[in-house]
Amino acid sequence: MKAAYYSGNKTFSIENIPIVEVDEHDVRVDVAYCGVCGTDMHVYHGAMDARVGDHRVIGHEMSGTIGAVGDAVSGLSIGDPVVIRPLDACGDCPACRRGHAHICQNLKFLGLDTDGAFQQSWTVPAHTVHRIPADLPLQHAALIEPVSVACHAVRRSRLAAGEDVLVIGGGPIGMLTAIVAQQAGANVTLSEVSKHRLELARELGFIALDPRETDIAEAMYAATGGKGADVVFEVSGSQPGIDTMTEAAATRGRVVMVAIHAEKPQVDLFRFFWREIELLGARVYEAADYEQAIDLVASGAIDCARMITDVRDLDGIGEAFAALSGNAQAMKSLIKCS
Amino acid sequence: MKAAYYSGNKTFSIENIPIVEVDEHDVRVDVAYCGVCGTDMHVYHGAMDARVGDHRVIGHEMSGTIGAVGDAVSGLSIGDPVVIRPLDACGDCPACRRGHAHICQNLKFLGLDTDGAFQQSWTVPAHTVHRIPADLPLQHAALIEPVSVACHAVRRSRLAAGEDVLVIGGGPIGMLTAIVAQQAGANVTLSEVSKHRLELARELGFIALDPRETDIAEAMYAATGGKGADVVFEVSGSQPGIDTMTEAAATRGRVVMVAIHAEKPQVDLFRFFWREIELLGARVYEAADYEQAIDLVASGAIDCARMITDVRDLDGIGEAFAALSGNAQAMKSLIKCS
Repeated sequence: MKAAYYSGNKTFSIENIPIVEVDEHDVRVDVAYCGVCGTDMHVYHGAMDARVGDHRVIGHEMSGTIGAVGDAVSGLSIGDPVVIRPLDACGDCPACRRGHAHICQNLKFLGLDTDGAFQQSWTVPAHTVHRIPADLPLQHAALIEPVSVACHAVRRSRLAAGEDVLVIGGGPIGMLTAIVAQQAGANVTLSEVSKHRLELARELGFIALDPRETDIAEAMYAATGGKGADVVFEVSGSQPGIDTMTEAAATRGRVVMVAIHAEKPQVDLFRFFWREIELLGARVYEAADYEQAIDLVASGAIDCARMITDVRDLDGIGEAFAALSGNAQAMKSLIKCS
Repeated sequence: MKAAYYSGNKTFSIENIPIVEVDEHDVRVDVAYCGVCGTDMHVYHGAMDARVGDHRVIGHEMSGTIGAVGDAVSGLSIGDPVVIRPLDACGDCPACRRGHAHICQNLKFLGLDTDGAFQQSWTVPAHTVHRIPADLPLQHAALIEPVSVACHAVRRSRLAAGEDVLVIGGGPIGMLTAIVAQQAGANVTLSEVSKHRLELARELGFIALDPRETDIAEAMYAATGGKGADVVFEVSGSQPGIDTMTEAAATRGRVVMVAIHAEKPQVDLFRFFWREIELLGARVYEAADYEQAIDLVASGAIDCARMITDVRDLDGIGEAFAALSGNAQAMKSLIKCS
């Protein structure tokens, strides 16, 4: 079968390799589609070489059908359409013992710490499998992983219907977070600098503002009778985003940290004190988030077609990554793996 | 009667003024003792002149007995021993309307925005009064306000018995927070640089560490089987404290921001994301915190005598403030007001 190996320095090599046989607790999935994640882009640009090395199949935002089932696996059959929750926890660290296996202190992330889904067939532990409805298009199903990130962030925020939400950053995760919050009954404002993404956000029913043209915090206060945002999702990973999150949050508001801040930004902790604001880190997802994401995608509540920018064959993976580099227009690129 | 006016630039003037008569919803309290708060020290050093001006009676950590009761006040009588919760909310802002009157967006803090308790008799709205047991020494009762700050911080943290707590900063509020957490059944470690305060902390039963000698985060992991602190109280107001709070917090740990950070420190937001840590601002107190603080002080659970460094007459208020300036030995100084 074909597998696309990241081989360092913005290159992939397509190799023919034997199928990985299933152990008794494994499932082999014939990969239909796999989306390109922001993390995959970081790998492509060499920022994660220390973790992934220079001969790694990456990719984890995938859909497929089961091709083989290990002897000890029950409840799954060849031909089942599935998605994979790509987390393999140790089960024994303090985080796992306290019920937070999704952020296990020794977590293996499939597709980074092990080979991933940019290949024709992917062998994974059976506990990572979620079955999906048979009539769910497999292109749409490839979005279930990022939708699960959004579901987890919204769940961490304890969002209630009718609350005022600010999403800072309108890339794929920010846009999906806005959609999931809207589905939960929130009034959503999105802050984003790309005209293309602002346009999409408006079409999806959000108040979409460019922070270079509008003072986002002032706009939130004006729209909420001086209250501010009940919930802020920081998905920009930028210092201006950090400044806006504290300015715009209501008294006792919740700020959810979804973005990865590689640098330590300056944070207005006085504002956290003064207004008793909460900050909540939100990383990956748990099983319940996957189930919610499957429901949202299957029901059509999330318009996946609008989120998919393009689809290429596995042989075109290098072009797909090159096209996404520094591209603030694109939302989600899919690779057709088989 | 005598009143001590802060008159700018580290000076107080003792003036003889008429007693302020009670309006129908007021109570006049004959002040017994009033402690010197860190905020009062900021006023003394001129840092809050824009807010308090140069002719203001400050002070709010007080105890006393009721000297007069307004016509519309019920349930309070002349001679009742009381403490005052010095918060006067507007009742109409978004914070008040959502049940967070203690952090009202137009809050008047009695003793900063109005005249305070460094005077023989203090006239205040009756809704600010908490009655205290008749046998509670009024010197001890003057600590109820700062104990309430600690109770509020601990309540915000959702602390459970048996949890591992790190308190960063061992001044009066840090020490009281450690005591309240200990009373709630926590295992408390305190980080502090003053030898005198470290000694007191050890006598009170805490693991007390000097961050210049010990890596605090490493010590927390070593003591908790690699888990880290379930709850961190940041009471230091320092950049090293901010660094330690993120390093030492367990996965899904709660960090409570009690300190005032006038500058915006650099914060490891990646750690908040990665470990799904929570940050919770905690400011002042609510009625329930005062009731808990009264119980803790009245029951002897808090050894107030150990916390009181000295007691001076109202005429000696200038000397008291001068003695506290830059003094890392002192805990709580009281002024005897009548």
